[in-house]
Amino acid sequence: MPVSPITLFFDFASPYSYLAIRLIEDVAQRHDRGIAWVPILLGPVFAATGARPLIEQPLKGEYARIDLARSARYFGVPYALPTPFPVSTHQAARVLLGLQRANSPQVAPWVRAVSAAYFAEGHNIANMDTLHALGAELGLQAAQIDAWCADPDIKSALKDNVERALRAGVCGAPFFIVDDEPFWGVDRLPQMERWMTARF
Amino acid sequence: MPVSPITLFFDFASPYSYLAIRLIEDVAQRHDRGIAWVPILLGPVFAATGARPLIEQPLKGEYARIDLARSARYFGVPYALPTPFPVSTHQAARVLLGLQRANSPQVAPWVRAVSAAYFAEGHNIANMDTLHALGAELGLQAAQIDAWCADPDIKSALKDNVERALRAGVCGAPFFIVDDEPFWGVDRLPQMERWMTARF
Repeated sequence: MPVSPITLFFDFASPYSYLAIRLIEDVAQRHDRGIAWVPILLGPVFAATGARPLIEQPLKGEYARIDLARSARYFGVPYALPTPFPVSTHQAARVLLGLQRANSPQVAPWVRAVSAAYFAEGHNIANMDTLHALGAELGLQAAQIDAWCADPDIKSALKDNVERALRAGVCGAPFFIVDDEPFWGVDRLPQMERWMTARF
Repeated sequence: MPVSPITLFFDFASPYSYLAIRLIEDVAQRHDRGIAWVPILLGPVFAATGARPLIEQPLKGEYARIDLARSARYFGVPYALPTPFPVSTHQAARVLLGLQRANSPQVAPWVRAVSAAYFAEGHNIANMDTLHALGAELGLQAAQIDAWCADPDIKSALKDNVERALRAGVCGAPFFIVDDEPFWGVDRLPQMERWMTARF
């Protein structure tokens, strides 16, 4: 029986999402699963939960800076909190949606490239020049990237992703769903792995 | 060189604190550390961070119910979300402070007994009868328990714990500090263990 993919809801500006992106492909491979990448915008999710970005919260923000840097070391992932932070990610997300609609083999490479550009290399991924340069390395034309970013259907699909996330109970990012079982946070990967193996 | 204890800030009504209480003694033993139990009240911490109890939050509350039950299974710990939830925990915390002041050997047993009574057995730990019954099993007189609960110095010490927690950056519970390194959440125990071993 074919197994369903791991669905990963993420925002390109979420640092814990970045860590998840760095780790999830190995996890999926170990369990013979694909990955359904679902780019969302955390702004509307925070509006629904009443939350603010972690980094901006009293006490939690200071802790999060320590925890993010240490978590990256723990997982062996290069990481630095970029400036400016956070940035708008709807253009990067729209390009991903364009690649997905085109059934492009560059879907996962785009996710990897954009997230690493921001959190490992400090490039501003809200900047179209950055997206064009990242696209060029994957063989994508700047005109194609601009067309996806301006496409009304793709704009609408990104809003649909956010609605779908809220309906699915997504309360933050990264958020994983495997066979209807929800897992919130990169720290839930060990539970998710045991769940895929043993349905404990 | 003697090592410092693991400091654990917790609220007796916090379900993730309960999981931490069930796990921390084994962790401490593996690393030849003692445990400094610091009972706090999450209400003032939530006021400082602008947070509400997890269970009451839109989306997060529903997820938390799933995650708590699954986390308990993952760790092999008996657990059921009690009714009523949450409850007032200042009396249970004051008894713990009284035991600590008396250098009683019943400090850790009291922490274990109160948290298990609430989250494994469903007893209302805001109820003095419950505390008396739990105390009786540990050889504590009801009159002694009542005296601690009414002691102005102990009442003041509990407030001091909350102030100390906020100064230390405690943004939720359970919150661990080891040699000045902060760890928030029972899901950070693996990082804390590696940190105690390797200072990564």
